[in-house]
Amino acid sequence: MGLYSVFSLLIALHPFLYHGVNAFVQRSDLISTRLSTTAFTRSSLQMQANSPPPYPVRIAVMGGGNFGLALSSISARKGFPTTILVREQEIADSINTNHTHPRYMRDVKFPPTLRATTNPQDCLPDATYIVHAVPVQYSRKFLNSVKEYIPPGTPVLSGSKGIETSSLGFMADILKETLGEERPYAFLSGPSFAREICDGVATAVVIASEDLLLARDLATLLSDGNFRVFTSRDVIGVEIGGAVKNVIALAAGMCEGLGLGTNAMSGLVTRGCGEMRRLGLTLGARPSTIAGLSGVGDTFGTCFGPLSRNRQFGYRLGKGETMEEILASSSEVAEGVDTSIALVNFIKQNCKGYRLDLKYPILFGVADILQGKLTPLDGLKGIMNMPFLMENFDER
Amino acid sequence: MGLYSVFSLLIALHPFLYHGVNAFVQRSDLISTRLSTTAFTRSSLQMQANSPPPYPVRIAVMGGGNFGLALSSISARKGFPTTILVREQEIADSINTNHTHPRYMRDVKFPPTLRATTNPQDCLPDATYIVHAVPVQYSRKFLNSVKEYIPPGTPVLSGSKGIETSSLGFMADILKETLGEERPYAFLSGPSFAREICDGVATAVVIASEDLLLARDLATLLSDGNFRVFTSRDVIGVEIGGAVKNVIALAAGMCEGLGLGTNAMSGLVTRGCGEMRRLGLTLGARPSTIAGLSGVGDTFGTCFGPLSRNRQFGYRLGKGETMEEILASSSEVAEGVDTSIALVNFIKQNCKGYRLDLKYPILFGVADILQGKLTPLDGLKGIMNMPFLMENFDER
Repeated sequence: MGLYSVFSLLIALHPFLYHGVNAFVQRSDLISTRLSTTAFTRSSLQMQANSPPPYPVRIAVMGGGNFGLALSSISARKGFPTTILVREQEIADSINTNHTHPRYMRDVKFPPTLRATTNPQDCLPDATYIVHAVPVQYSRKFLNSVKEYIPPGTPVLSGSKGIETSSLGFMADILKETLGEERPYAFLSGPSFAREICDGVATAVVIASEDLLLARDLATLLSDGNFRVFTSRDVIGVEIGGAVKNVIALAAGMCEGLGLGTNAMSGLVTRGCGEMRRLGLTLGARPSTIAGLSGVGDTFGTCFGPLSRNRQFGYRLGKGETMEEILASSSEVAEGVDTSIALVNFIKQNCKGYRLDLKYPILFGVADILQGKLTPLDGLKGIMNMPFLMENFDER
Repeated sequence: MGLYSVFSLLIALHPFLYHGVNAFVQRSDLISTRLSTTAFTRSSLQMQANSPPPYPVRIAVMGGGNFGLALSSISARKGFPTTILVREQEIADSINTNHTHPRYMRDVKFPPTLRATTNPQDCLPDATYIVHAVPVQYSRKFLNSVKEYIPPGTPVLSGSKGIETSSLGFMADILKETLGEERPYAFLSGPSFAREICDGVATAVVIASEDLLLARDLATLLSDGNFRVFTSRDVIGVEIGGAVKNVIALAAGMCEGLGLGTNAMSGLVTRGCGEMRRLGLTLGARPSTIAGLSGVGDTFGTCFGPLSRNRQFGYRLGKGETMEEILASSSEVAEGVDTSIALVNFIKQNCKGYRLDLKYPILFGVADILQGKLTPLDGLKGIMNMPFLMENFDER
């Protein structure tokens, strides 16, 4: 039987072999990124949400903001021992004793299986998975302070988004630089107001990882009837969506504050997603990621749902308040403000070509407004009159 | 000088020639679709919004609904003699005398340059451009009744959207079948609430035509500081967006009526846009059109702006009213209801492949709900649990 016959046989068997071979190709791909003991099962959790995984699962969540609380209550609700690392003893006590947070979402009762601590030694060394939910600008310092407690192989799921102003790095870069290149990382994003997650209403998010097995395991761990997790390998696409949507939310807020109406707001948000798409394609993201939950989906929720911090910030700018007034009067962080400036610097550094301000008029325009170079009205007017906003500009 | 030298010369001149040659290629392309006397200028209106065109412009608008009124007030505001064709003499009189409509947007004062008539003979034969704004399900009958008044070469701009239930044709098909294959057609779409257009607040739309010169001329004619028209050649992309967004709006309304929250709504709308994208790519649309004003943009406006008729219809279904109750109590047409059923039949007829219901779960699910096969809650639950909604399903 010569080579020809082997080929014929393979071709004849092709429909039958296809899925197996395909899975194998994906797997061998994965082995190069992570030496996994479970590489030859489809997923170490077998993709069945209700059967217990074949090893003990303990979850540690770093960061006691709204999103950290939401992610920890999902995992605690699923019955996994979950510990949230918070900064103040008073908050830890309140969660452990009353199952409530003294300041955030005060009427939410967290599952009794959720424990809180202020000591990283108590939760990080024996965690099977670690969730990172500290805002991007504070992440590097925080991660450096706890990295000694995190064992080398423990996977980290990041729920934080944005670009660090000092390094112009995304969360993936910050995590790799602080916790090591070798560790498996995953990134969660999508339209997911913390409040609604805690209330247990339907939510769909995406977890992206270069290690698809990890993404699938985490999806299986966290999914329940109302919290649905999809998987993706497009980490950069998910990260770009998470950063750009906060800047679009600032612009949308200004549009609302200035009373420009639904048509203008829809046009602005759509063109903003167009810039997200352009940046994503430039950096190798998949267009379907930008069109998906972590891109357009998260932007939908942020721009049209309950007033988010970023949209609120933009709204107050549109109403005529100054940056200083807003910053002085709000206790919570509008991450989009830092991200906006960082994103423009990132684009200047990473995208080739001339007149990038015309290719990213909304991203550059918002940064100009935030830096006081333009009023919100003049800035938005400028954005809307840009010839490069023409619908047929982007041929891809 | 041999052939080789000619080639060298052409290659040397390439950067210089490129734009000219490219424009020429486009033009010769256009000449085949329209015998235009102005084919050798870049655009017969020279793309300058404020200089008068070199020939008399008279606009006729067919259809006195909200959108017909909005489009006719744009053109009248720009100073072009504009006549709107309405069904009732009382309405024509009110527009001509008081510059208001007796029933729609009653507090809007139309420009005094806008005239109204009930007689097609009064406005169609001498119009330079004709705008069609009759709902898709009534278009064929209406167009057949007026076609004798429309001269062969007059371009028609359609502002109507959706699929005809009887023929499963889009507006482009209906127009070609009633007014002839040879005539130049253009299609306007985008997030454009009629009310806001009349109020003159910022709005951005796209006009698509196989004849890009026509699209540009119309863009120039209708654009002003607050109404911005972009151009595209992707007619099918624009038409698919216009049809699918009304079905997504029905689903979004149900989601609201059932009180499922912003996360669920954002996820649903995003996955709906994913189905729009899948259908568009299958039929040859450009992904950037789906991601643009006429696709995602119009969906944004319809699903998150003021309650549109389609979303209102979905909302009432979600609140537990029956189809019959809603149809009996509303005077206005929710076009999405007809479009939804037609769209499912269109997909069955035009898309190859098995289990199309799993590839278009929202489009099929909404049709099932409207046909009484599922309750809104069960339908939406089914949609949200579809494995094919997985983020990494669509690799394109």
